[in-house]
Amino acid sequence: MGRRAVVLLSGGLDSATALAIAVEQGYRPCALTLRYGQRHEREVDAARRVAEAMRVTRHVVTAVDLRAFGGSALTDDLEVPKGGRGSADPEDIPITYVPARNTIFLSMALAWAEVLQASDIFIGVNAVDYSGYPDCRPEFLAAFEHLAALGTRAGVEGSRPFRIHAPLIDLTKAEIIRRGLALGVDYGMTRSCYDPDASDAACGECDSCRLRLAGFAAAGARDPAPYQAR
Amino acid sequence: MGRRAVVLLSGGLDSATALAIAVEQGYRPCALTLRYGQRHEREVDAARRVAEAMRVTRHVVTAVDLRAFGGSALTDDLEVPKGGRGSADPEDIPITYVPARNTIFLSMALAWAEVLQASDIFIGVNAVDYSGYPDCRPEFLAAFEHLAALGTRAGVEGSRPFRIHAPLIDLTKAEIIRRGLALGVDYGMTRSCYDPDASDAACGECDSCRLRLAGFAAAGARDPAPYQAR
Repeated sequence: MGRRAVVLLSGGLDSATALAIAVEQGYRPCALTLRYGQRHEREVDAARRVAEAMRVTRHVVTAVDLRAFGGSALTDDLEVPKGGRGSADPEDIPITYVPARNTIFLSMALAWAEVLQASDIFIGVNAVDYSGYPDCRPEFLAAFEHLAALGTRAGVEGSRPFRIHAPLIDLTKAEIIRRGLALGVDYGMTRSCYDPDASDAACGECDSCRLRLAGFAAAGARDPAPYQAR
Repeated sequence: MGRRAVVLLSGGLDSATALAIAVEQGYRPCALTLRYGQRHEREVDAARRVAEAMRVTRHVVTAVDLRAFGGSALTDDLEVPKGGRGSADPEDIPITYVPARNTIFLSMALAWAEVLQASDIFIGVNAVDYSGYPDCRPEFLAAFEHLAALGTRAGVEGSRPFRIHAPLIDLTKAEIIRRGLALGVDYGMTRSCYDPDASDAACGECDSCRLRLAGFAAAGARDPAPYQAR
Protein backbone atom coordinates (compact mmCIF):
# COMPACT_ATOMS: atom_id res chain seq x y z
CA MET A 1 0.00 0.00 0.00
CA GLY A 2 1.26 3.49 -0.82
CA ARG A 3 1.43 6.49 1.45
CA ARG A 4 -1.64 8.54 2.10
CA ALA A 5 -1.93 11.89 0.32
CA VAL A 6 -4.54 14.62 0.67
CA VAL A 7 -5.84 15.68 -2.75
CA LEU A 8 -7.82 18.91 -3.13
CA LEU A 9 -10.74 17.98 -5.36
CA SER A 10 -13.04 20.68 -6.70
CA GLY A 11 -15.09 18.76 -9.23
CA GLY A 12 -13.31 20.48 -12.09
CA LEU A 13 -11.05 19.13 -14.80
CA ASP A 14 -7.71 20.09 -13.26
CA SER A 15 -8.19 18.57 -9.81
CA ALA A 16 -9.58 15.32 -11.29
CA THR A 17 -6.37 15.07 -13.31
CA ALA A 18 -4.22 15.82 -10.25
CA LEU A 19 -6.06 13.02 -8.42
CA ALA A 20 -5.38 10.57 -11.28
CA ILE A 21 -1.69 11.51 -11.16
CA ALA A 22 -1.57 10.93 -7.37
CA VAL A 23 -3.04 7.47 -7.92
CA GLU A 24 -0.57 6.79 -10.74
CA GLN A 25 2.30 7.76 -8.42
CA GLY A 26 1.17 5.12 -5.93
CA TYR A 27 -0.45 7.32 -3.27
CA ARG A 28 -3.61 6.35 -1.45
CA PRO A 29 -5.59 9.53 -2.00
CA CYS A 30 -7.86 11.13 0.61
CA ALA A 31 -9.92 13.70 -1.27
CA LEU A 32 -10.87 17.05 0.24
CA THR A 33 -13.65 19.15 -1.27
CA LEU A 34 -14.27 22.59 0.19
CA ARG A 35 -17.55 24.42 -0.15
CA TYR A 36 -16.59 28.06 -0.09
CA GLY A 37 -19.84 29.76 -0.94
CA GLN A 38 -19.54 29.03 -4.63
CA ARG A 39 -22.87 29.31 -6.32
CA HIS A 40 -23.08 25.80 -7.71
CA GLU A 41 -23.68 22.77 -5.55
CA ARG A 42 -23.12 20.89 -8.81
CA GLU A 43 -19.38 21.33 -8.39
CA VAL A 44 -19.64 19.34 -5.16
CA ASP A 45 -21.76 16.69 -6.91
CA ALA A 46 -19.08 16.43 -9.59
CA ALA A 47 -16.39 16.01 -6.92
CA ARG A 48 -18.39 13.17 -5.38
CA ARG A 49 -18.71 11.42 -8.74
CA VAL A 50 -15.00 11.76 -9.43
CA ALA A 51 -14.01 10.57 -5.93
CA GLU A 52 -16.22 7.53 -6.26
CA ALA A 53 -15.04 6.67 -9.76
CA MET A 54 -11.40 6.95 -8.69
CA ARG A 55 -11.99 4.95 -5.51
CA VAL A 56 -10.44 7.39 -3.11
CA THR A 57 -9.75 6.03 0.37
CA ARG A 58 -11.79 8.79 2.00
CA HIS A 59 -13.66 11.84 0.74
CA VAL A 60 -14.38 14.73 3.09
CA VAL A 61 -16.62 17.60 1.99
CA THR A 62 -16.46 20.50 4.39
CA ALA A 63 -17.28 24.19 4.45
CA VAL A 64 -15.24 27.37 4.57
CA ASP A 65 -17.59 30.27 4.24
CA LEU A 66 -15.87 33.01 2.25
CA ARG A 67 -19.11 34.76 1.32
CA ALA A 68 -18.94 36.72 4.55
CA PHE A 69 -15.95 38.59 3.10
CA GLY A 70 -17.27 39.32 -0.38
CA GLY A 71 -14.72 40.38 -2.97
CA SER A 72 -14.99 37.94 -5.90
CA ALA A 73 -17.31 37.02 -8.76
CA LEU A 74 -17.19 33.39 -7.65
CA THR A 75 -18.47 34.06 -4.16
CA ASP A 76 -20.48 37.26 -4.67
CA ASP A 77 -23.43 37.86 -6.91
CA LEU A 78 -21.39 39.84 -9.41
CA GLU A 79 -21.95 38.99 -13.04
CA VAL A 80 -19.57 36.34 -14.35
CA PRO A 81 -17.46 37.80 -17.15
CA LYS A 82 -17.90 36.29 -20.59
CA GLY A 83 -15.81 36.62 -23.68
CA GLY A 84 -12.52 37.49 -22.01
CA ARG A 85 -10.51 37.25 -18.80
CA GLY A 86 -12.96 39.54 -17.05
CA SER A 87 -10.51 42.37 -17.24
CA ALA A 88 -9.50 44.92 -19.86
CA ASP A 89 -5.78 44.24 -19.46
CA PRO A 90 -4.68 40.60 -19.82
CA GLU A 91 -1.88 41.27 -17.32
CA ASP A 92 -4.40 42.13 -14.63
CA ILE A 93 -5.56 39.70 -11.99
CA PRO A 94 -8.96 38.43 -13.21
CA ILE A 95 -12.16 39.41 -11.43
CA THR A 96 -12.81 35.71 -10.80
CA TYR A 97 -9.78 35.59 -8.46
CA VAL A 98 -10.93 34.61 -4.95
CA PRO A 99 -8.83 36.34 -2.25
CA ALA A 100 -6.34 34.01 -0.57
CA ARG A 101 -8.26 30.99 -1.82
CA ASN A 102 -5.36 28.63 -2.31
CA THR A 103 -3.81 29.73 0.98
CA ILE A 104 -7.04 28.73 2.73
CA PHE A 105 -7.43 25.51 0.72
CA LEU A 106 -3.86 24.38 1.39
CA SER A 107 -4.26 25.25 5.09
CA MET A 108 -7.31 23.01 5.32
CA ALA A 109 -5.52 20.23 3.45
CA LEU A 110 -2.58 20.64 5.83
CA ALA A 111 -4.83 20.26 8.88
CA TRP A 112 -6.27 17.04 7.53
CA ALA A 113 -2.88 15.75 6.41
CA GLU A 114 -1.57 16.35 9.91
CA VAL A 115 -4.39 14.32 11.42
CA LEU A 116 -3.91 11.53 8.84
CA GLN A 117 -0.13 11.62 9.39
CA ALA A 118 0.19 12.19 5.66
CA SER A 119 2.95 14.43 4.38
CA ASP A 120 1.84 14.85 0.78
CA ILE A 121 -0.77 17.26 -0.56
CA PHE A 122 -1.85 17.44 -4.20
CA ILE A 123 -3.35 20.58 -5.71
CA GLY A 124 -4.36 21.05 -9.34
CA VAL A 125 -3.08 24.60 -9.75
CA ASN A 126 -1.73 25.68 -13.05
CA ALA A 127 0.56 28.61 -13.77
CA VAL A 128 0.11 28.60 -17.54
CA ASP A 129 -3.60 29.17 -18.01
CA TYR A 130 -4.04 31.00 -14.70
CA SER A 131 -1.03 33.27 -14.87
CA GLY A 132 -3.07 36.12 -13.40
CA TYR A 133 -3.67 34.34 -10.08
CA PRO A 134 -0.90 35.09 -7.58
CA ASP A 135 -1.57 31.92 -5.58
CA CYS A 136 -0.98 29.61 -8.58
CA ARG A 137 2.75 30.33 -8.81
CA PRO A 138 5.57 27.92 -7.90
CA GLU A 139 7.11 30.41 -5.45
CA PHE A 140 3.81 30.59 -3.59
CA LEU A 141 3.73 26.80 -3.24
CA ALA A 142 7.34 26.74 -2.03
CA ALA A 143 6.47 29.38 0.59
CA PHE A 144 3.57 27.21 1.74
CA GLU A 145 5.84 24.19 2.17
CA HIS A 146 8.12 26.32 4.33
CA LEU A 147 5.16 27.52 6.40
CA ALA A 148 3.88 23.95 6.81
CA ALA A 149 7.27 22.83 8.10
CA LEU A 150 7.17 25.52 10.79
CA GLY A 151 3.50 25.44 11.71
CA THR A 152 2.82 21.79 12.36
CA ARG A 153 3.57 19.10 14.86
CA ALA A 154 5.19 16.99 12.16
CA GLY A 155 7.46 19.88 11.17
CA VAL A 156 8.56 20.49 14.75
CA GLU A 157 9.02 16.84 15.60
CA GLY A 158 11.23 16.40 12.57
CA SER A 159 9.27 13.76 10.73
CA ARG A 160 8.96 13.72 6.95
CA PRO A 161 8.45 17.29 5.67
CA PHE A 162 5.18 18.25 4.01
CA ARG A 163 5.34 18.38 0.27
CA ILE A 164 2.93 20.28 -1.94
CA HIS A 165 2.57 18.48 -5.27
CA ALA A 166 1.31 20.61 -8.14
CA PRO A 167 1.73 18.20 -11.05
CA LEU A 168 -0.13 20.45 -13.49
CA ILE A 169 1.74 23.62 -12.74
CA ASP A 170 3.72 23.81 -15.99
CA LEU A 171 1.18 22.13 -18.30
CA THR A 172 -1.10 23.80 -20.81
CA LYS A 173 -4.78 22.91 -20.66
CA ALA A 174 -4.32 20.63 -23.70
CA GLU A 175 -1.42 18.83 -21.99
CA ILE A 176 -3.49 18.38 -18.83
CA ILE A 177 -6.33 16.87 -20.84
CA ARG A 178 -4.03 14.53 -22.79
CA ARG A 179 -2.43 13.40 -19.56
CA GLY A 180 -5.80 12.78 -17.91
CA LEU A 181 -7.19 10.91 -20.91
CA ALA A 182 -4.10 8.69 -20.91
CA LEU A 183 -4.78 7.94 -17.22
CA GLY A 184 -8.42 7.12 -17.93
CA VAL A 185 -10.04 10.19 -16.37
CA ASP A 186 -13.71 10.48 -17.38
CA TYR A 187 -14.00 14.22 -17.97
CA GLY A 188 -17.74 13.81 -18.51
CA MET A 189 -17.96 13.66 -14.69
CA THR A 190 -16.17 16.97 -14.18
CA ARG A 191 -17.64 20.47 -14.28
CA SER A 192 -15.87 23.75 -14.97
CA CYS A 193 -18.61 26.22 -15.94
CA TYR A 194 -19.12 29.33 -13.80
CA ASP A 195 -22.72 29.64 -15.01
CA PRO A 196 -24.43 26.29 -15.80
CA ASP A 197 -28.17 26.03 -16.55
CA ALA A 198 -30.79 24.16 -14.49
CA SER A 199 -29.94 20.84 -16.17
CA ASP A 200 -26.24 21.29 -15.25
CA ALA A 201 -25.24 21.98 -18.85
CA ALA A 202 -22.26 24.32 -19.24
CA CYS A 203 -22.71 27.75 -20.84
CA GLY A 204 -19.75 27.37 -23.19
CA GLU A 205 -19.05 31.09 -22.96
CA CYS A 206 -17.63 31.95 -19.54
CA ASP A 207 -13.85 32.18 -19.13
CA SER A 208 -13.70 28.73 -17.60
CA CYS A 209 -15.70 27.08 -20.42
CA ARG A 210 -13.64 28.87 -23.09
CA LEU A 211 -10.38 27.70 -21.55
CA ARG A 212 -11.72 24.16 -21.27
CA LEU A 213 -13.11 23.99 -24.80
CA ALA A 214 -9.93 25.46 -26.28
CA GLY A 215 -7.97 22.83 -24.33
CA PHE A 216 -10.01 19.96 -25.71
CA ALA A 217 -9.71 21.42 -29.22
CA ALA A 218 -5.92 21.74 -28.89
CA ALA A 219 -5.73 18.19 -27.48
CA GLY A 220 -7.72 16.94 -30.47
CA ALA A 221 -10.41 15.49 -28.22
CA ARG A 222 -14.11 16.02 -27.65
CA ASP A 223 -15.30 17.31 -24.26
CA PRO A 224 -17.77 14.69 -22.98
CA ALA A 225 -19.39 17.13 -20.47
CA PRO A 226 -22.86 18.50 -21.31
CA TYR A 227 -23.14 21.96 -22.92
CA GLN A 228 -26.16 24.14 -23.56
CA ALA A 229 -27.38 24.18 -27.18
CA ARG A 230 -26.22 27.40 -28.85
CA MET B 1 -9.16 57.80 10.86
CA GLY B 2 -6.56 55.04 11.17
CA ARG B 3 -5.95 52.19 8.79
CA ARG B 4 -8.16 49.17 8.89
CA ALA B 5 -6.77 46.02 10.51
CA VAL B 6 -8.26 42.55 10.75
CA VAL B 7 -8.15 41.26 14.33
CA LEU B 8 -8.70 37.57 15.06
CA LEU B 9 -11.06 37.54 18.02
CA SER B 10 -11.85 34.27 19.78
CA GLY B 11 -13.70 35.47 22.84
CA GLY B 12 -10.73 34.62 25.05
CA LEU B 13 -8.47 36.81 27.14
CA ASP B 14 -5.54 37.00 24.72
CA SER B 15 -7.39 38.09 21.59
CA ALA B 16 -9.40 40.71 23.54
CA THR B 17 -6.07 42.15 24.66
CA ALA B 18 -4.68 42.07 21.11
CA LEU B 19 -7.79 43.96 19.97
CA ALA B 20 -7.28 46.61 22.65
CA ILE B 21 -3.66 47.02 21.52
CA ALA B 22 -4.75 47.42 17.87
CA VAL B 23 -7.14 50.18 18.96
CA GLU B 24 -4.42 51.81 21.06
CA GLN B 25 -2.11 51.79 18.01
CA GLY B 26 -4.70 53.74 16.03
CA TYR B 27 -6.10 51.00 13.81
CA ARG B 28 -9.76 50.72 12.93
CA PRO B 29 -10.27 47.06 13.84
CA CYS B 30 -12.45 44.66 11.85
CA ALA B 31 -12.89 41.62 14.08
CA LEU B 32 -12.99 38.08 12.71
CA THR B 33 -14.35 35.22 14.79
CA LEU B 34 -14.10 31.71 13.39
CA ARG B 35 -16.32 28.90 14.48
CA TYR B 36 -14.22 25.82 13.99
CA GLY B 37 -16.33 23.16 15.54
CA GLN B 38 -15.36 24.13 19.04
CA ARG B 39 -17.77 22.78 21.54
CA HIS B 40 -18.81 26.05 23.11
CA GLU B 41 -21.00 28.56 21.37
CA ARG B 42 -20.30 30.68 24.44
CA GLU B 43 -16.89 31.54 23.05
CA VAL B 44 -18.65 33.16 20.10
CA ASP B 45 -21.02 34.98 22.46
CA ALA B 46 -18.00 36.28 24.36
CA ALA B 47 -16.43 37.49 21.10
CA ARG B 48 -19.63 39.37 20.28
CA ARG B 49 -19.65 41.06 23.68
CA VAL B 50 -16.01 42.07 23.36
CA ALA B 51 -16.44 43.35 19.80
CA GLU B 52 -19.41 45.45 20.84
CA ALA B 53 -17.73 46.83 23.93
CA MET B 54 -14.64 47.78 21.94
CA ARG B 55 -16.71 49.29 19.12
CA VAL B 56 -15.09 47.43 16.29
CA THR B 57 -15.87 48.77 12.81
CA ARG B 58 -17.18 45.41 11.66
CA HIS B 59 -17.45 41.96 13.22
CA VAL B 60 -17.71 38.89 11.01
CA VAL B 61 -18.42 35.48 12.52
CA THR B 62 -17.91 32.71 10.00
CA ALA B 63 -17.39 28.98 9.99
CA VAL B 64 -14.47 26.70 9.19
CA ASP B 65 -15.48 23.18 9.97
CA LEU B 66 -12.45 21.32 11.31
CA ARG B 67 -14.51 18.59 12.97
CA ALA B 68 -14.55 16.66 9.70
CA PHE B 69 -10.82 16.03 10.23
CA GLY B 70 -10.84 15.05 13.90
CA GLY B 71 -7.51 15.07 15.67
CA SER B 72 -7.81 17.38 18.68
CA ALA B 73 -9.46 17.60 22.07
CA LEU B 74 -10.91 20.98 21.15
CA THR B 75 -12.75 19.74 18.09
CA ASP B 76 -13.29 16.06 18.92
CA ASP B 77 -15.16 14.57 21.82
CA LEU B 78 -11.99 13.55 23.61
CA GLU B 79 -11.82 14.35 27.27
CA VAL B 80 -10.27 17.71 28.05
CA PRO B 81 -7.12 17.21 30.13
CA LYS B 82 -7.15 18.65 33.64
CA GLY B 83 -4.34 19.24 36.04
CA GLY B 84 -1.53 19.48 33.50
CA ARG B 85 -0.61 20.25 29.93
CA GLY B 86 -2.48 17.18 28.72
CA SER B 87 0.77 15.37 28.13
CA ALA B 88 3.25 13.45 30.25
CA ASP B 89 6.29 15.35 28.95
CA PRO B 90 6.10 19.16 29.24
CA GLU B 91 8.19 19.41 26.05
CA ASP B 92 5.51 17.62 24.05
CA ILE B 93 2.90 19.34 21.96
CA PRO B 94 -0.27 19.40 24.08
CA ILE B 95 -3.28 17.26 23.17
CA THR B 96 -5.34 20.48 22.93
CA TYR B 97 -3.25 21.53 19.90
CA VAL B 98 -5.56 21.88 16.87
CA PRO B 99 -3.79 20.86 13.64
CA ALA B 100 -2.79 23.81 11.48
CA ARG B 101 -5.24 26.03 13.33
CA ASN B 102 -3.31 29.29 13.16
CA THR B 103 -2.41 28.64 9.51
CA ILE B 104 -6.13 28.38 8.74
CA PHE B 105 -7.07 31.34 10.93
CA LEU B 106 -4.43 33.60 9.39
CA SER B 107 -5.47 32.48 5.90
CA MET B 108 -9.05 33.49 6.59
CA ALA B 109 -7.90 36.81 8.05
CA LEU B 110 -5.75 37.34 4.96
CA ALA B 111 -8.72 36.76 2.64
CA TRP B 112 -10.79 39.33 4.47
CA ALA B 113 -7.88 41.78 4.72
CA GLU B 114 -7.42 41.53 0.97
CA VAL B 115 -11.08 42.36 0.36
CA LEU B 116 -10.93 45.26 2.85
CA GLN B 117 -7.64 46.47 1.33
CA ALA B 118 -6.18 46.23 4.81
CA SER B 119 -2.58 45.15 5.20
CA ASP B 120 -2.48 44.55 8.94
CA ILE B 121 -3.62 41.45 10.80
CA PHE B 122 -3.58 41.08 14.59
CA ILE B 123 -3.42 37.70 16.29
CA GLY B 124 -3.22 37.07 20.03
CA VAL B 125 -0.73 34.21 19.90
CA ASN B 126 1.75 33.83 22.67
CA ALA B 127 5.02 31.93 22.58
CA VAL B 128 5.61 31.95 26.33
CA ASP B 129 2.59 30.14 27.74
CA TYR B 130 1.96 28.12 24.58
CA SER B 131 5.48 27.05 23.84
CA GLY B 132 4.26 23.61 22.82
CA TYR B 133 2.22 24.91 19.88
CA PRO B 134 4.33 25.06 16.72
CA ASP B 135 2.09 27.69 15.12
CA CYS B 136 2.59 30.19 17.96
CA ARG B 137 6.29 30.81 17.17
CA PRO B 138 7.73 34.03 15.67
CA GLU B 139 9.33 32.12 12.77
CA PHE B 140 5.94 30.71 11.85
CA LEU B 141 4.45 34.21 11.73
CA ALA B 142 7.35 35.47 9.60
CA ALA B 143 6.80 32.58 7.18
CA PHE B 144 3.14 33.53 6.96
CA GLU B 145 4.01 37.14 6.09
CA HIS B 146 6.22 35.83 3.30
CA LEU B 147 3.44 33.57 2.02
CA ALA B 148 0.94 36.43 2.14
CA ALA B 149 3.24 38.62 0.05
CA LEU B 150 3.39 35.93 -2.64
CA GLY B 151 -0.17 34.68 -2.56
CA THR B 152 -2.24 37.83 -2.82
CA ARG B 153 -3.16 40.48 -5.30
CA ALA B 154 -1.72 43.15 -3.02
CA GLY B 155 1.59 41.30 -2.83
CA VAL B 156 1.84 40.94 -6.59
CA GLU B 157 0.77 44.48 -7.35
CA GLY B 158 3.40 45.79 -4.99
CA SER B 159 1.18 47.67 -2.57
CA ARG B 160 1.89 47.77 1.16
CA PRO B 161 3.01 44.32 2.35
CA PHE B 162 0.86 42.37 4.77
CA ARG B 163 2.03 42.50 8.32
CA ILE B 164 1.12 39.98 11.00
CA HIS B 165 1.03 41.70 14.38
CA ALA B 166 1.41 39.41 17.37
CA PRO B 167 1.72 41.95 20.19
CA LEU B 168 1.47 39.32 22.94
CA ILE B 169 4.06 36.95 21.54
CA ASP B 170 6.76 37.62 24.14
CA LEU B 171 4.53 38.41 27.11
CA THR B 172 3.71 36.19 30.05
CA LYS B 173 0.05 35.74 30.94
CA ALA B 174 0.47 38.17 33.84
CA GLU B 175 2.00 40.78 31.53
CA ILE B 176 -0.87 40.33 29.05
CA ILE B 177 -3.41 40.85 31.82
CA ARG B 178 -1.65 43.92 33.19
CA ARG B 179 -1.46 45.39 29.70
CA GLY B 180 -5.15 44.72 29.02
CA LEU B 181 -6.26 46.13 32.39
CA ALA B 182 -4.25 49.29 31.68
CA LEU B 183 -6.11 49.58 28.34
CA GLY B 184 -9.48 49.11 30.03
CA VAL B 185 -10.28 45.60 28.82
CA ASP B 186 -13.21 44.09 30.75
CA TYR B 187 -12.00 40.53 31.20
CA GLY B 188 -15.36 39.62 32.71
CA MET B 189 -16.62 39.51 29.11
CA THR B 190 -13.99 37.02 27.98
CA ARG B 191 -14.06 33.24 28.31
CA SER B 192 -11.14 30.83 28.33
CA CYS B 193 -12.47 27.60 29.86
CA TYR B 194 -12.42 24.42 27.77
CA ASP B 195 -15.24 22.94 29.85
CA PRO B 196 -17.73 25.51 31.24
CA ASP B 197 -20.99 24.49 32.94
CA ALA B 198 -24.54 25.23 31.75
CA SER B 199 -24.50 28.70 33.33
CA ASP B 200 -21.24 29.53 31.43
CA ALA B 201 -19.15 29.39 34.60
CA ALA B 202 -15.55 28.26 34.08
CA CYS B 203 -14.35 24.97 35.58
CA GLY B 204 -11.19 26.48 37.06
CA GLU B 205 -9.33 23.23 36.48
CA CYS B 206 -8.64 22.76 32.77
CA ASP B 207 -5.28 23.84 31.37
CA SER B 208 -6.75 27.05 30.03
CA CYS B 209 -8.38 28.01 33.35
CA ARG B 210 -5.21 27.18 35.29
CA LEU B 211 -3.09 29.36 33.01
CA ARG B 212 -5.61 32.19 33.29
CA LEU B 213 -5.98 32.03 37.06
CA ALA B 214 -2.22 31.81 37.56
CA GLY B 215 -1.88 34.86 35.27
CA PHE B 216 -4.35 36.91 37.32
CA ALA B 217 -2.65 35.83 40.54
CA ALA B 218 0.76 36.83 39.19
CA ALA B 219 -0.66 40.15 37.98
CA GLY B 220 -2.11 40.76 41.45
CA ALA B 221 -5.63 41.08 40.05
CA ARG B 222 -8.93 39.26 40.46
CA ASP B 223 -10.42 37.48 37.44
CA PRO B 224 -13.90 39.00 36.99
CA ALA B 225 -15.16 36.04 34.87
CA PRO B 226 -17.58 33.59 36.52
CA TYR B 227 -16.20 30.34 37.99
CA GLN B 228 -18.01 27.27 39.29
CA ALA B 229 -18.14 26.95 43.07
CA ARG B 230 -15.54 24.41 44.17
